[in-house]
Amino acid sequence: MKNLSNISPVIFSLNSEALVARLCKHLDGETGNYTTRDFPDGESYLCIKTDVYQRHCIVVADMSRPNSKFLPLLFLADTLRELGAASVGLIAPYLSYMRQDRRFLDGEAITSKIFAKSLSHHIDYLVTVDPHLHRYHSLDEIYSVPSKVVQGAPALAKWLKDQGDLLLVGPDSESEQWVSDIAKYSGHPFITGDKIRRGDRDVEITLPDVSSYLGLTAVIIDDVISSGQTILCCIKALHSAGVVNIKCAAVHGIFADGVDQDLLNAGLSALITSNTISHSSNVVDISPLLIEPVLECILHVSQSTK
Amino acid sequence: MKNLSNISPVIFSLNSEALVARLCKHLDGETGNYTTRDFPDGESYLCIKTDVYQRHCIVVADMSRPNSKFLPLLFLADTLRELGAASVGLIAPYLSYMRQDRRFLDGEAITSKIFAKSLSHHIDYLVTVDPHLHRYHSLDEIYSVPSKVVQGAPALAKWLKDQGDLLLVGPDSESEQWVSDIAKYSGHPFITGDKIRRGDRDVEITLPDVSSYLGLTAVIIDDVISSGQTILCCIKALHSAGVVNIKCAAVHGIFADGVDQDLLNAGLSALITSNTISHSSNVVDISPLLIEPVLECILHVSQSTK
Repeated sequence: MKNLSNISPVIFSLNSEALVARLCKHLDGETGNYTTRDFPDGESYLCIKTDVYQRHCIVVADMSRPNSKFLPLLFLADTLRELGAASVGLIAPYLSYMRQDRRFLDGEAITSKIFAKSLSHHIDYLVTVDPHLHRYHSLDEIYSVPSKVVQGAPALAKWLKDQGDLLLVGPDSESEQWVSDIAKYSGHPFITGDKIRRGDRDVEITLPDVSSYLGLTAVIIDDVISSGQTILCCIKALHSAGVVNIKCAAVHGIFADGVDQDLLNAGLSALITSNTISHSSNVVDISPLLIEPVLECILHVSQSTK
Repeated sequence: MKNLSNISPVIFSLNSEALVARLCKHLDGETGNYTTRDFPDGESYLCIKTDVYQRHCIVVADMSRPNSKFLPLLFLADTLRELGAASVGLIAPYLSYMRQDRRFLDGEAITSKIFAKSLSHHIDYLVTVDPHLHRYHSLDEIYSVPSKVVQGAPALAKWLKDQGDLLLVGPDSESEQWVSDIAKYSGHPFITGDKIRRGDRDVEITLPDVSSYLGLTAVIIDDVISSGQTILCCIKALHSAGVVNIKCAAVHGIFADGVDQDLLNAGLSALITSNTISHSSNVVDISPLLIEPVLECILHVSQSTK
């Protein structure tokens, strides 16, 4: 990519140190240094130590469990700008508030729009991985700054390809296209279940006949594990069908209420996630896929401010 | 106040139900009804049940421990506007992020400015009680929307006036003017201590000679109790000086890390706060002082949008 060989961005971690270290390597960047602490009254203090004057800055912030992270993110982004940063981009490897994309009931807050509009005031561009684009076709519908979406599936597929004989399992019909694409690349057979959701934590899954796959290790594949109830039900269904060795791989591991431990207790032999959200299960490295989109955004922002 | 007799605002509580109930009475208003819950992944859901179309709406939000409250507040305010509210005002009985009002060290985030600027995007006006205006002379320096500041001291003084013989105690020289004004109104003698602060929780206080007041109940007076270390040291200093009966009264009781219990354990016979922040010590009602400023703000906003 031309014009970008000597950008050397300063990359700040809100909560993603390991990912920032990898990105610094790929982008020939410098880790941004700052101190932060909370006062006894719950307010945050922040002091940026790295000189950012006229430098391209990137903040990496996993936005899972977003409410308490939002103000610290604004403080970091706005202060970088005040200190003279050439640009302030956000890599949100996991982007929150994408689900409520319509007023299903009168009076509902369309949180995705409000979150996006507010965040857009503070950043020059946004790069994220597998956001929940359901009714929105593009982040441009809600974010007023340039954005790039990175697909997590190729990273997952690449990792799966090296794991020998597997049966890939999509927990529900929504995941069919996604699991099918991954299976095509990784060269494994796949099945998808049928999910009935009765509430945030009340889910039932039925599977097709798996008798011809009983010798294989099953790998449940999902884009995001949040409450984990879908995966727990899928493990149960696979066990009932006689499948013995079960793993689970996802792009985003949120693991609400310590469900990661519940998943392992339910009989998973391995839990695999990408490093979009820091967790001991991080095995799949997403960072190489972020390089080009980030550089494109910096180039775009640089050109539009010339 | 003219033109305001039939406003009948809809008043929503983010976290201040008791205060909203009182304000509804004073302002002939209706309590705004909404449902909210958190999804397992930590995102918030919000649905407004009261019809707010073309009505003046007020959100009452104590902003102590602000970080996790900020997004829910934006969701509420922006959704009221989307649903056609005539105006959306914020009563923040306690306003956060007023302390870091300057870049004391290179690279520090001036959180007061960033918080105020971001919040100003979402509200039509702001009413608050005793904000920490130290180097700022007015909220107008950081808030771009109209604002009104209510003094908490008169409410405290009015309550103290009815409590018989007391010695009012300001913990430090900063509080001298404030305690002196209260004492003038309530008719009590007062003293102020000298405070040396070595850290958020490391404070020492020395008092003037109190031998002539030993028979009186001492009431330590402060605008805000946060870590409570100042008050704890003041109790200790009073005890050492031979004062037996000690109470404490403050406008804002934040009580970080359960220090309210520590204060009572340290020998306070009573802890008194105003209802700016909901707490069992709420004795002083601030709501009557909010009426006029709120009505003035609604009038101001109504006229400027005509």
